[in-house]
Amino acid sequence: MKTLIFGHKSPDTDTICSALVYADLKTKLGYEVEPVRLGELNGETEYALEYFKQEAPRLVETVADETEQVILVDHNERQQSADDIDKVEVKEVIDHHRIANFETDGPLYYRAEPVGCTATILNKLYKEQNVEVSEEMAGLMVSSIISDSLLFKSPTCTEEDEKAAEELAAKARIDLNEYGLDMLKAGTDISDKSAEELISIDAKAFEMGEANVRIAQVNTVDTAEVLERKSDLEEAMQKEINGNGYNLFVLLITDILDSDSTAIAIGENQAAVEQAFNVKLENNEAVLKDVVSRKKQVVPPLNKVFG
Amino acid sequence: MKTLIFGHKSPDTDTICSALVYADLKTKLGYEVEPVRLGELNGETEYALEYFKQEAPRLVETVADETEQVILVDHNERQQSADDIDKVEVKEVIDHHRIANFETDGPLYYRAEPVGCTATILNKLYKEQNVEVSEEMAGLMVSSIISDSLLFKSPTCTEEDEKAAEELAAKARIDLNEYGLDMLKAGTDISDKSAEELISIDAKAFEMGEANVRIAQVNTVDTAEVLERKSDLEEAMQKEINGNGYNLFVLLITDILDSDSTAIAIGENQAAVEQAFNVKLENNEAVLKDVVSRKKQVVPPLNKVFG
Repeated sequence: MKTLIFGHKSPDTDTICSALVYADLKTKLGYEVEPVRLGELNGETEYALEYFKQEAPRLVETVADETEQVILVDHNERQQSADDIDKVEVKEVIDHHRIANFETDGPLYYRAEPVGCTATILNKLYKEQNVEVSEEMAGLMVSSIISDSLLFKSPTCTEEDEKAAEELAAKARIDLNEYGLDMLKAGTDISDKSAEELISIDAKAFEMGEANVRIAQVNTVDTAEVLERKSDLEEAMQKEINGNGYNLFVLLITDILDSDSTAIAIGENQAAVEQAFNVKLENNEAVLKDVVSRKKQVVPPLNKVFG
Repeated sequence: MKTLIFGHKSPDTDTICSALVYADLKTKLGYEVEPVRLGELNGETEYALEYFKQEAPRLVETVADETEQVILVDHNERQQSADDIDKVEVKEVIDHHRIANFETDGPLYYRAEPVGCTATILNKLYKEQNVEVSEEMAGLMVSSIISDSLLFKSPTCTEEDEKAAEELAAKARIDLNEYGLDMLKAGTDISDKSAEELISIDAKAFEMGEANVRIAQVNTVDTAEVLERKSDLEEAMQKEINGNGYNLFVLLITDILDSDSTAIAIGENQAAVEQAFNVKLENNEAVLKDVVSRKKQVVPPLNKVFG
């Protein structure tokens, strides 16, 4: 029986590429695995896959109907994973996030490092296992690093990520800056996206103390263009709150050129955002100066407020 | 400020040696760390430390009064760790157990592998970091592997553990079998131990479903000698149940020559043992054929019953 490898819901470039890349490594090591995905591709990821001529992983909603064993990449929290994750055995996790809402019955291989991107860890695993990285896999890994680090501007980006990206860019035969900006921009075209899509393309749920918090992020090169649709976005967020019982929904609109974010926050625990970032919400909105990383700059301070 | 490195409460040889060894590696890599321990040494660990002329780590009860950052070895579950573990930041975990009751606010370095012993992973980390292993550290690591694997008889023991043990035995200049049996036997002298000590030398608490389960293990070369003190042991176990609200207390008396265990089980959920191992308790007692590993052969079936 094949072991399925997948990243989180609302997949981003690192989640999709890491599933493909780790499946490549495990296959070369003799394992029977298949990369799958839990949601739709975003424009940025489509750009990367097309550039390196790779098929997207197969879309699945549940996993227990086809396997008993899975490998998680780029996530571990239950609510970000397959709906029936509790019905299968997690054999491995390769991740770079905090650990929470995760539990196993038995021992497993768990490899997390506090780096900016799962692909940076995967690049190490190829070396540890003495497996050559192909041009295509190098391309997917460098795309992941560019995406998660916003071309090295995010505070989550470490020296290791930058070194890995340079090494992989050479193997993938791309110019880091040119390819990187083209790929990031490909992810910012919102003209054909509904408000519902915009708040779910890159969205994650977190349990913080007693609160159920949803944090979505949209990258842009034109914040004003996104804010033109604010009332539609708020309506869509409110619908999600009603349907899923979130106590707080935060939408981060992140300018990838300026490296600031504008937050729209609604829900009964709206005030937590003011407290966490020492800002005043006006019409549910506040600018978060120099904030680009959900993981490093948004989740920890919010978690502290709810803690 | 120094980062403290420690293993679980009721420390065994792997927990003590892994704290010492990882502190050696981190120090050589330029970090300020100190190994500490959360409880008394057992006779087996004392034998190993004396043989390789190493000081025991300093004993502490809490950690938050002296540091903000800690590294866990050989455990992750909150109830097995320092009482005030929630007040500090866990920066790293090196472990070989299931993950449960563990949560962080931010990303960390987490390295778990499904091998028999933490030291087997540490031996890899020296290689990955290109740091030479000293004779003494090799001695502590091979002692850990012998202890956790009961000289390679435990089903938790993997090929990797055996290979690492052979490599480390050469570096430590010991004969594996001779040193191993001497060390294991040093841990089985119970003549000077009270019943309270016997049930706490190697004891761990587990949250299983709604139940709070305590599982202690005593190694012996003479099961009858331990069972002579059964009524004292049961009294001590009942006291622990009353004081800590355990729903079940299981004492495994493991014959390290025969590789069988005799279980004594008391508490309101006593019947879970009968269900998990398909045995009948007589006077709270049952033989568990070929069972030597708490982690691999006792926790998972019990967990299933409570699941």
